[in-house]
Amino acid sequence: MTQQATYNGNRTIEVSECQSQAPKADEVRINVAYCGVCGTDLHIFLGHMDQRVDMPQVIGHEMSGVVAEVGANVSDWQVGDHVVVRPLDPCNDCPACAAGHQHICQKLKFLGIDTPGAFQGSWTVPAHTLHRLPDDLPLDKAAMIEPIAVACHDVRLGEVTDGDKVVVIGGGPIGILNALVARNAGGDVLLSEVNPFRVKLARELGLAAVNPKETDLVGHVSEWTGGAGADVVFEVSGTAIGAETMTKLARTRGRIVVVAIFADAPKVDLFQCFWRELTMRGARVYEPQDYERAIQLAATNALPLDQLITERYPLSKLQTAFEQIASGAEVMKILVDTQAV
Amino acid sequence: MTQQATYNGNRTIEVSECQSQAPKADEVRINVAYCGVCGTDLHIFLGHMDQRVDMPQVIGHEMSGVVAEVGANVSDWQVGDHVVVRPLDPCNDCPACAAGHQHICQKLKFLGIDTPGAFQGSWTVPAHTLHRLPDDLPLDKAAMIEPIAVACHDVRLGEVTDGDKVVVIGGGPIGILNALVARNAGGDVLLSEVNPFRVKLARELGLAAVNPKETDLVGHVSEWTGGAGADVVFEVSGTAIGAETMTKLARTRGRIVVVAIFADAPKVDLFQCFWRELTMRGARVYEPQDYERAIQLAATNALPLDQLITERYPLSKLQTAFEQIASGAEVMKILVDTQAV
Repeated sequence: MTQQATYNGNRTIEVSECQSQAPKADEVRINVAYCGVCGTDLHIFLGHMDQRVDMPQVIGHEMSGVVAEVGANVSDWQVGDHVVVRPLDPCNDCPACAAGHQHICQKLKFLGIDTPGAFQGSWTVPAHTLHRLPDDLPLDKAAMIEPIAVACHDVRLGEVTDGDKVVVIGGGPIGILNALVARNAGGDVLLSEVNPFRVKLARELGLAAVNPKETDLVGHVSEWTGGAGADVVFEVSGTAIGAETMTKLARTRGRIVVVAIFADAPKVDLFQCFWRELTMRGARVYEPQDYERAIQLAATNALPLDQLITERYPLSKLQTAFEQIASGAEVMKILVDTQAV
Repeated sequence: MTQQATYNGNRTIEVSECQSQAPKADEVRINVAYCGVCGTDLHIFLGHMDQRVDMPQVIGHEMSGVVAEVGANVSDWQVGDHVVVRPLDPCNDCPACAAGHQHICQKLKFLGIDTPGAFQGSWTVPAHTLHRLPDDLPLDKAAMIEPIAVACHDVRLGEVTDGDKVVVIGGGPIGILNALVARNAGGDVLLSEVNPFRVKLARELGLAAVNPKETDLVGHVSEWTGGAGADVVFEVSGTAIGAETMTKLARTRGRIVVVAIFADAPKVDLFQCFWRELTMRGARVYEPQDYERAIQLAATNALPLDQLITERYPLSKLQTAFEQIASGAEVMKILVDTQAV
């Protein structure tokens, strides 16, 4: 029997029978194979987004699956197609959409936050959200495509090119994927992370990684770059110290990409921004081309995805997954098998 | 007799006989005609830069003049040439210079801060700092070329194009010049300024200007842009409220140019930067092409420079000029006639 996991508020996940929805016109129903646990899902679990989320709500969006049923007007997709969903539903009417920025639509609906998500065995979504997978790409790896697409977007907006010295501040799943995708783009990458487990994992992936609690990061980067500073800095920690440090690491006219979600406005050294003519650029979610690039990277085994997936749980252990991440347990990406109970 | 004005510390300017220097190899001696008072000069006068400035020091750098004597190896310049000085002396050796960013050289010497400046009748400078003026450009207007070049640099880095909605936060000389140069570049410009005298002057120049103490700036810009937000925002106020407001004014993927010098790191809403994928870019001084553009704008009477020059003083009144600006008097640009006593 197909199951679903709902967030019911108060740090509680409930597993129940899936309320499968037949696809309407322009919709597709997917048998979800896997769904990863995202930092945003954790924020929801912890109650930080209770004002936005209608409870009970099926959350989750880092998924892979197989088309099970197609609605009227859907001609591009057939039952059996392997797919991932780009979980963005723009209004196509606001000034951002009119300017071609549908991915940051001013009234954007995010599937799995504003509408039901993928922590369920059967998921019905707008057909425009689908991307096709090669049949030989394992569906567990494919569930990593959404966060890889985030990293592809970040690295594209950071304009990382061959030989760039790149610093990534923060080594959670998105930080490590930023580092890996930047390396794939030709960057010479240094990761900064305070959690010893994450530093160790990053090093196992062949990334240069330092713990800024042990190493003077600013001095280290200055020495590493011959006094120039880094070409590109990704701020993925969302911390006040990360925001303070980022402007100290970049070279003249260096690029800083703000990837993290800062709940509070941190102090930012705008003098340094002026003095070195730094560029700071926010990067949010992804555009279709980032998904296509992420699929290509996953399909060609360009990234060590198996090593990033540190646990695999059935849907019934989603509550445990959230509690582990919240407690700072030694996990990187937790993948949920949505067909297993 | 040629005079000089030195900053002697303790908010004191002293006028004395000019210590004229014969030009060495690769140097040129200029009879300075006019020199404007810059915000940076005010910072020096107020003692904020005493650690950097060797006292007594001739300050000043917003100048125009006539070549009076050329040193050995100087073939491009002749006595009688009308010139302005781009007061930057880079090391040509640091990583910033190697990357082609000489104007923000990591060891940059700024003429009039780190070496003697232009508040004197006779000034000897490296020949590489000179730009040629058309003979028919009045030298009083030409003394505005340095701040115009700042604005040209800011507007160029802000990529202002035809039809862009532009907000300038802060209506001092640089803010107003930013607004005027952005308008010349095709921008539809709104100036935000709290000082009623400056608001009135901006309106006399035909600029749309609001006082954010009287008008809800964020609401006004939202309405003005049909809910989209501004294409480009220039932060020229250097205030905490300016830094807080700038991210509220820009559209999705809008550009914010940080022009002001922030003595303290302000809080910056990095969430909004992320959410709307804003670009924040620091802009400092100018490159040669900005000087050429500024000369072109001045020579073609494209900007109402006469209205910006609100006072004209002899060198002996420089002390008074600083005291007026420091006290918030109703002045915009004060021009000093360096040949008058």
